[in-house]
Amino acid sequence: MAKKEKEFVQDITPMEVDFPQWYTDVILKTDLVDYSPVRGFMVIKPYGYAIWENIQKYMDKRFKDTGHKNCYFPLLIPESLLKKEEEHVEGFAPEVAWVTHGGKEELPERLCVRPTSETIICSMYAKWLKSYRELPYLYNQWCSVVRWEKTTRPFLRTSEFLWQEGHTLHETYDEAQAETLQMLQIYKETAEDLMAIPVVTGRKSDKEKFAGAYATYTMEALMHDGKALQAGTSHNLGQHFTKAFEITFLDRNGEIQNPYHTSWGVSTRLIGGIIMVHGDNRGLVLPPRVAPIQVVMIPIAQHKEGVLDKVYELKKALGDEIRIEIDDSENYSPGWKFNEWEMKGVPIRIEVGPRDIENNQVVIFRRDTLEKQSVSMDGLKETVEKLLDDIHESLLEKARKLRNEKTYYITDFEDFAKKMETAPGFAKGMWCGSRECEDNIKAKTSATIRCIPFEQEDLGDKCHFCGQEAKHMVYVAKAY
Amino acid sequence: MAKKEKEFVQDITPMEVDFPQWYTDVILKTDLVDYSPVRGFMVIKPYGYAIWENIQKYMDKRFKDTGHKNCYFPLLIPESLLKKEEEHVEGFAPEVAWVTHGGKEELPERLCVRPTSETIICSMYAKWLKSYRELPYLYNQWCSVVRWEKTTRPFLRTSEFLWQEGHTLHETYDEAQAETLQMLQIYKETAEDLMAIPVVTGRKSDKEKFAGAYATYTMEALMHDGKALQAGTSHNLGQHFTKAFEITFLDRNGEIQNPYHTSWGVSTRLIGGIIMVHGDNRGLVLPPRVAPIQVVMIPIAQHKEGVLDKVYELKKALGDEIRIEIDDSENYSPGWKFNEWEMKGVPIRIEVGPRDIENNQVVIFRRDTLEKQSVSMDGLKETVEKLLDDIHESLLEKARKLRNEKTYYITDFEDFAKKMETAPGFAKGMWCGSRECEDNIKAKTSATIRCIPFEQEDLGDKCHFCGQEAKHMVYVAKAY
Repeated sequence: MAKKEKEFVQDITPMEVDFPQWYTDVILKTDLVDYSPVRGFMVIKPYGYAIWENIQKYMDKRFKDTGHKNCYFPLLIPESLLKKEEEHVEGFAPEVAWVTHGGKEELPERLCVRPTSETIICSMYAKWLKSYRELPYLYNQWCSVVRWEKTTRPFLRTSEFLWQEGHTLHETYDEAQAETLQMLQIYKETAEDLMAIPVVTGRKSDKEKFAGAYATYTMEALMHDGKALQAGTSHNLGQHFTKAFEITFLDRNGEIQNPYHTSWGVSTRLIGGIIMVHGDNRGLVLPPRVAPIQVVMIPIAQHKEGVLDKVYELKKALGDEIRIEIDDSENYSPGWKFNEWEMKGVPIRIEVGPRDIENNQVVIFRRDTLEKQSVSMDGLKETVEKLLDDIHESLLEKARKLRNEKTYYITDFEDFAKKMETAPGFAKGMWCGSRECEDNIKAKTSATIRCIPFEQEDLGDKCHFCGQEAKHMVYVAKAY
Repeated sequence: MAKKEKEFVQDITPMEVDFPQWYTDVILKTDLVDYSPVRGFMVIKPYGYAIWENIQKYMDKRFKDTGHKNCYFPLLIPESLLKKEEEHVEGFAPEVAWVTHGGKEELPERLCVRPTSETIICSMYAKWLKSYRELPYLYNQWCSVVRWEKTTRPFLRTSEFLWQEGHTLHETYDEAQAETLQMLQIYKETAEDLMAIPVVTGRKSDKEKFAGAYATYTMEALMHDGKALQAGTSHNLGQHFTKAFEITFLDRNGEIQNPYHTSWGVSTRLIGGIIMVHGDNRGLVLPPRVAPIQVVMIPIAQHKEGVLDKVYELKKALGDEIRIEIDDSENYSPGWKFNEWEMKGVPIRIEVGPRDIENNQVVIFRRDTLEKQSVSMDGLKETVEKLLDDIHESLLEKARKLRNEKTYYITDFEDFAKKMETAPGFAKGMWCGSRECEDNIKAKTSATIRCIPFEQEDLGDKCHFCGQEAKHMVYVAKAY
C-alpha cells in the first residue's frame, strides 16, 4: 500500500487544539448520538446503537459459553431495600432518581430507578436459594440504569446508560473469586479482541472500589489525550450483601451458610473508549469487529453501463458474513461520499469504476492508514477478510504503542504532578497503601490511583507519593 | 405413535377448576417468573427470559430485513412533552410513574417513566428531519416501559414490561398505511410461524384505539378459557403527533410538510399467550421454535457402562442448531425428571437406556400429544428436526381448532350476553359503529369489540346489539 489520500477537512476541531470539542464534534457529526430534552440523558442513534449491538452479541455469547443465563429484574427499587447494605446506600443514594407518584397517587414508599441492581436481585435470591445443589447462580441482565450526574458527556458519563450486570452466587470464597477474575478476563478479551483497545487489569484501591464490595477489579484503558477510562469492573462482593439480605443455603454438611457473591458490568461507555482510542482528526476510526459497516462500496461513474451491476455482483461474492453497504445515492459525488464514510470510520472502502472493471480490479482504501491500492477482483472475499483482520491487529498495535508512549515511571511527586499537567498519561509508581496518601494525590493533581495491576513491577521500597514504606506498584492517571 | 404416558399429577390446579389459579401455578412452578418486592412488578427468571430472547431474535431479524434499525431513547420524559398531544396525555397520564427528585434535589419539572415513547421520539425527529430525501425514518427500540396498573398478572398486565416499539415517519399517508399493515403482518407471522398461535387481524374501534392514533390495527388470539388476548398492535398515527411536535420536511416540490407517522409494539405479554394457548393440566407446552430447550435427553440407568457416553455422542450428532439439554443429575430418578421436564413444556424428550443402545434405538416422547415411540439412532437428527416441525404444525392446528370451537355467530343480544357468561369465546356479529352501542355492550357483558376484522363476513343488515343499520362485522369477546 502506497498512495496517501490528500488531506480533507471534515469541519472537526483538531484533537490537538481542543480534545473535548473534537470528541463532541465526532459523536454528533457521525450520527452516533444526540442530546435529548432531558438534561444528561442521551439518544443513541442507529449508527451508535449498532456498535452496542455488536458488543452485546460478542459478550452475550461469551457469558453463555461460560454458563450464564439472562433474566430481568424490576426497574424500580424500594428505598428500604437500597438501604439494607450500609456502604452501598451511602455510595448510591446521592445519585438516584426517585419515583414518588404512581398515576395520581403518592406512593407509600419512594422507589428509586435502579442505579445498579444488587439490592433488588439479592432480595429475590434470598427468596429462591435453598441448597448448595442449586449453586452457583450465574445470572446476567442487559438493561438501562440511571445515576443522576451533574456533569455529563455522551457515552462517558450520562444520567442514563445501557449496560449488562452479572450477579452470581457461589458456595465458597474461592469460587466467587475465580468467577470475579474470569469475568474480568472476558472483559479484557472483549476490549482487545473485539475493540482493539489494550487494557491494564488489576485491583482497585479501597477508596475506589464499588460501594459494598470486598474487592473491585478493573480494566483501564488510556485515551488519546492521556486520560484513563475505567472500561469495566468486576466485584467480589464477599458476603456483604448476602448477610445484609439474609441469603442462606444448606451446605454440604447440612449447615446454614451465606453464599459468596459477585457482580460485574460494562456499559455503553465502551463506545466512548472506541472513539477516543482510535479516532483521528478526520473523525471515527472503527475497529472492524464492532463496525456497523465494515466495507462501503462506492461506484465510480455509476451511470456507465455495467458499473452498478458489477458492484452488486461483487457484494454478493463478498458474502453475508461481511457487513457491507453500497452507497449508490445519486445526489452526491464519489469524493463527497469518500469523505462522509471516512468520517464515519468505515474500515474499508472499495471503489469500482469502468477502468477498474476493464482491469478486473478494484481500489481498496484503508481508513486507519489512509492508504489506497488496487487489488484483483479474483479472491476479493479472502483479500477483504484478511485485511479486516490486519486492520484489527494494526489498530491494537497502534493503540498499544500510543499507550506505551504515554506511560512513564514516577521519579518524585513534584515531577509527577507537573507531568500530569503538561503531558498526562499512565504514571507508574510505588504506593504505601494509605488512604491519606491517596487523598493527597487527588487533592494535589486531580489524578487518581487507577489500579494495583496484576503485573506488579518492583520500582523501589518507598512510596513515590509520601516516602513511607511501599506496598504496591500502581498506575495513576487522570480519568474520565 | 401409540403408547400413552400414565397420568401424573403435577400439583397444578386443573384449568377447568380454576383457570387463573392454573395460570399462576404454571408460571411459578415452571420458573418462568416470580413476584418482586415492588407491587405489580415481576422478575423474569432465566427460563422465561430465554423465551423472550427467542422471540426477540426472530422479530429483530424480521425488522432488519424490512429496513428497520434499532436505537435507544431516554427512559424519562418531561411532563411538558407528554402533554403536547391532547388525546395521548389523556390516555396515559393516569397510569404513569413520576420522578420528582434527582439525588437530593427536587426537579424543576416532573419526569415520567416512559409508558411508550412517541413523545420523546417525536421531539427528536422534529430536530433531525429536514428533507424528503431522509425519509422514511424506520426505527425501533427494545426496552422496558412502565404503566401503573391497579390489578396485575405476570406477563399479561404488569406495571413494568419489556417490549419493542417501532416509530416510523413517511412522506405520504399511503406509505405510512403500508408500513402499519406490513408490521401487523410481521406480528401475525411471529404469532403463527414462531409461537403457533393463530390470530385474527383487523382494525380497532375508535374507542379501543391507541391514544393519539388515526387508526389502530391489532392481532387478537383466543385463550383456553375463551378470553381474547390483544397480542400486538400497529398504529397509523397520521399527522397527529407530527403536527403537535412540529415535525416538518421539505417535500419534492419544495414545500414544507408534516410527515406521516406510525408506531407498533409487542411485549412480554406474548409469553402469557403462549402459556394460555398451548398449556395443559401437566403444565407448559412450549412451541418448539420458542422453547429454550427443544430436546431434553434423559439417560436411563446412567451408571451402566456406555450409557452416558452414548447420550453425549447422540447430542453431538444432533448438532448445534437444536437446543438440547442433557439431564444427568444424580439426585433424581428418571421418572422424576420425566415429570419435571413435562411440566416445563420441553417439546421432545429422548430416553436412552442400556436396552435402547443394544437395539440401536432411543425412546422419543412428544410433550404435546404425550405419545411415546422407539426410533432408530440412525438419522436421529433428521427425525428430531422433522418432529419439531410436526409439533409446531400440530400445535397451531390444535389451537386453531380450539379457537373455532369457541367462535360462534351472534343471534341476538340476550343469547350473546348469556354465552359470554356461560361459554365465553369469540362472538361474531354485525355492529352499527356507534360509540353508544359499544359502551352498552361493555356495560352489560364486560365484553368488548376486539376488532373489525380484515376478513369481513356479511352477517346481515342490522346491528346485532342495537338493531340499527349495520356497518361492520366485528369480533366481540371478554379480554385480558
